[in-house]
Amino acid sequence: MVTVALLAAACQTEPQPVAADPAEAVMANILSRKSVRSYTADTIPAAVMENLLRAAMAAPSGRNIQPWSFVVLNDTSRYDEIFGDNHNMSMFKQSAVVVVICGDTTVVRPPRDNPDAPAVQQPSGTWRDDMGAVTENLLLAVEAYGLGACWTACYPYLDRMAPVKQALGLPATVVPYSVVPIGYPAGDEQPKDKWDPSRIHYGRW
Amino acid sequence: MVTVALLAAACQTEPQPVAADPAEAVMANILSRKSVRSYTADTIPAAVMENLLRAAMAAPSGRNIQPWSFVVLNDTSRYDEIFGDNHNMSMFKQSAVVVVICGDTTVVRPPRDNPDAPAVQQPSGTWRDDMGAVTENLLLAVEAYGLGACWTACYPYLDRMAPVKQALGLPATVVPYSVVPIGYPAGDEQPKDKWDPSRIHYGRW
Repeated sequence: MVTVALLAAACQTEPQPVAADPAEAVMANILSRKSVRSYTADTIPAAVMENLLRAAMAAPSGRNIQPWSFVVLNDTSRYDEIFGDNHNMSMFKQSAVVVVICGDTTVVRPPRDNPDAPAVQQPSGTWRDDMGAVTENLLLAVEAYGLGACWTACYPYLDRMAPVKQALGLPATVVPYSVVPIGYPAGDEQPKDKWDPSRIHYGRW
Repeated sequence: MVTVALLAAACQTEPQPVAADPAEAVMANILSRKSVRSYTADTIPAAVMENLLRAAMAAPSGRNIQPWSFVVLNDTSRYDEIFGDNHNMSMFKQSAVVVVICGDTTVVRPPRDNPDAPAVQQPSGTWRDDMGAVTENLLLAVEAYGLGACWTACYPYLDRMAPVKQALGLPATVVPYSVVPIGYPAGDEQPKDKWDPSRIHYGRW
């Protein structure tokens, strides 16, 4: 069921035998992750779904503020209300589940230059960076379980965020960051080979 | 050498036997990732270093713009010039290598509403989100190889970015996004257990 390809064969068409070395298994997973945009009608086991969210919540965050929350959706009859005229609608409706990854743009803590002062609610400087890591963790776990997903951006596009925020009843300081449809792949999407040594500089640009 | 702990034992002190199931290996890796802030004097094999950067470049990016570049540093005599009075300096100087993950804030392409028009250089709407995923991929590969690292923010802090950009000679549209010191762990940092089911909502908030 799990079809993680070997590192050296990450771009081949057929699933490959799985590496015994855990580092190779991790590398193969990272190199096999891909955007999957069509899904079978199969549902996702609850235990797998929990592990996907465990992976997401294991992301790092600046000063460990953990600004994330998740809204899990599978009632497609509500998607027109929730996602408006989002151009990814057909993908959302075909998927087994849609996870809306939300980020709190504020944090409640003492001022940085006065740790003994009372905690106040203030803008977070790094919430958006944290959310990128959360989303990537989710996508990597999806790949590991033989599922497929596609990261679709919500933030910073106001026209996409507005209906989601309204329909899901998000708190004032919470924004819908990314929308991730997940399901078992119906097609045979392959990972892109993006390795480009010219992007690496040593000592200086 | 690889010390990925089993999923069920991610918060125990001793390294655990490695799971044979690749999905378990991937989950264990994600749940074992941690910030490591002290390092031994050991250097990182070139083949491992290449795989770390392969993992980073396998990240997704909005419309596949791949806005990333990497500056790899190990000449600590230059770090005062490069990092100024960054409060993470002692960690940088102790690590085997520092990777400065850079992002191009612009993209050259036709206007979104007119794909047949000539390509023009324009701000990227998602480069920052892409960089979060790149950084997380690097950190997960670091963990897989028994190395340790710590994501330190550079963008959006102007006082941290300025000396890096100047000293490394970054192009005008490229910013230093994150600074990641990497080395073999000298201590026994453990991953945080951040699992919190109250962060998950079903159907609506």
